[in-house]
Amino acid sequence: MSERFHNFSAGPAVLPVPVLEEVREELLCYPGAGASVMEISHRSEAFDAIHAMAKDNIKALLNLPDDYQILFLQGGASLQFSMLAMNFLNGGAADYVECGTWAQKAIGEAKKHGTPRIVWSGKAENFKRMPRPDEVSVGADAAYLHLTSNETIQGVEMFDLPDAGKTPVFCDASSNFLSRPTGITKYALMYAGAQKNIGPSGVAVALLRKDLLERVPANLPSLLDYKLMAENDSLYNTPPCFGIYMIGKVTGWIRNTIGGLDAMEALNRKKANLLYSVIDASGGFYKGHAEVQNRSLMNVTFILDGGDLEKRFIKEATAAGLDGLKGHRSVGGCRASIYNALPLEGVQALHDFMVEFQKKNG
Amino acid sequence: MSERFHNFSAGPAVLPVPVLEEVREELLCYPGAGASVMEISHRSEAFDAIHAMAKDNIKALLNLPDDYQILFLQGGASLQFSMLAMNFLNGGAADYVECGTWAQKAIGEAKKHGTPRIVWSGKAENFKRMPRPDEVSVGADAAYLHLTSNETIQGVEMFDLPDAGKTPVFCDASSNFLSRPTGITKYALMYAGAQKNIGPSGVAVALLRKDLLERVPANLPSLLDYKLMAENDSLYNTPPCFGIYMIGKVTGWIRNTIGGLDAMEALNRKKANLLYSVIDASGGFYKGHAEVQNRSLMNVTFILDGGDLEKRFIKEATAAGLDGLKGHRSVGGCRASIYNALPLEGVQALHDFMVEFQKKNG
Repeated sequence: MSERFHNFSAGPAVLPVPVLEEVREELLCYPGAGASVMEISHRSEAFDAIHAMAKDNIKALLNLPDDYQILFLQGGASLQFSMLAMNFLNGGAADYVECGTWAQKAIGEAKKHGTPRIVWSGKAENFKRMPRPDEVSVGADAAYLHLTSNETIQGVEMFDLPDAGKTPVFCDASSNFLSRPTGITKYALMYAGAQKNIGPSGVAVALLRKDLLERVPANLPSLLDYKLMAENDSLYNTPPCFGIYMIGKVTGWIRNTIGGLDAMEALNRKKANLLYSVIDASGGFYKGHAEVQNRSLMNVTFILDGGDLEKRFIKEATAAGLDGLKGHRSVGGCRASIYNALPLEGVQALHDFMVEFQKKNG
Repeated sequence: MSERFHNFSAGPAVLPVPVLEEVREELLCYPGAGASVMEISHRSEAFDAIHAMAKDNIKALLNLPDDYQILFLQGGASLQFSMLAMNFLNGGAADYVECGTWAQKAIGEAKKHGTPRIVWSGKAENFKRMPRPDEVSVGADAAYLHLTSNETIQGVEMFDLPDAGKTPVFCDASSNFLSRPTGITKYALMYAGAQKNIGPSGVAVALLRKDLLERVPANLPSLLDYKLMAENDSLYNTPPCFGIYMIGKVTGWIRNTIGGLDAMEALNRKKANLLYSVIDASGGFYKGHAEVQNRSLMNVTFILDGGDLEKRFIKEATAAGLDGLKGHRSVGGCRASIYNALPLEGVQALHDFMVEFQKKNG
């Protein structure tokens, strides 16, 4: 087997090694099933138990009340942008916080199904921060308020929620899902593509307060109908079984090996502080993109000179086994994604590399 | 590692053991990538090569001309039922052959987006056969003719295509995709969920003649827009990377280990004949569901007494390591799914068990 790098990829992203080792062990024969987990019926007892474990872990980690439905869906967060609008906007108006590239994409899809109103935008400030709670006021007729809790590309994270009153709050939590306690009952719908913090690409999780199901209109495409998917407990058709299995394993690792979301947050803060401390102490050699109060614990974005030095930084880092540090093609710069599964040692290695690189080139 | 059963599951279904062994070998570290295939960016060189290999194998196996686009999509064939209607029916009329449960589902979804007309139905005959080509005539104004080439639940397969003239032929080939040569240019759109013949659940393949892309209307949800997905070569958002990787491996196995679709068909016919020969020689002890000319090479459906004997058959077969023989919950009876990856030995074992069971109980 060739050597594993420190993986700072923004997603698909690093997974816990103990999980990958378990998956490898079970790959040809899931215990008791007589076949790989990829080869068994989604209506078998073995898969029922796998599915139940994934739900149970998520429920336990978030203290999720019984009036929430846990759904495993396909098409990633991008299809959720459409699905939530088809189910709940449906020709009406809803309020959106435009806090980065992913919020813009959610707004773009919503426009096809009604009127998304931008109630706050960070665009003029180049998406360097999230709104303060007092900057967002929600329309009385809004079907929902849509937030993006972490913008992967810009590296800004929301820590203080706007007050939406009785308006349901929907949240794309793709890039910080299960990275820290969130107070889940503040949200009526939280959804996330799995491929950053909890599994491989190809499966998305949606946590939906059940009273919302009454609002779902008739005649939606079956796969885009939250009510039908809820009635069938995500098994209307064949679900992405392997992805659900992986989510069960990764959430089990967060729950049992890490010890829950408080411990997960402590580790994630420690990791993020390691990198932000280098940036802050660098005297402008490394320039962070986000304002301090909204620095993401998941995606640390920074630039050097925006030119040759930066290219060399990325090249030498890659050569040193620090992989995936190039910023998103749409904004450039550098980005270190340090999701749940990235070990402290990996972040420490990047920290040391950054200090060393500045010494040589500063 | 516990023991693998002979796996007659209807889907998710058996995968080639050599493929699973390769996947296990690469699970923690895809060669040269420094990470699992689940952990690398879908915009990395390593994934580009994986994606290209999957497309190249499909293209080579089917002799697919350059004017077809190969797409990897999410939501299975069930979301394709909606997607094709949103893209190409779009308020108009199209002709559907109602040849079994899956055709009915395709029709049900199409009704939400226009007028699917049933031009032939096997319903009154309990879906025991496919239409003869002369039984289907296509309306001049039909946007397309929709076929289901193999009905997994009823076990009937289409070997002779109706003549649709210049009307584009769309085909749900989920359960016999790449099981034999098909004359792909007769179809304008062929699609298949992967989880029967070519991979795990959570990824669907669509082969689309490119001239059809001009018909795609504006403002579809991005993930359901064939044109946008084609322009982005399936990478508009994060695709189901692991599923695409698996498809590359399984299609490589068909292409290189089996030796292509002619060899695949020969093996599949040999397997199917083994089981149908027992049914035919049983003097009515085993009663096949399908008429001889449309017996599926993939799903062998039969009943015994429909009661206690059948329950015992399934129970004893399971105990003998022959798994997944219970018929679909909607129709009952027995079903042996013998997809590409089920080895001849497995079918031989079931053959021998059936002969023996009749001897003891006939």
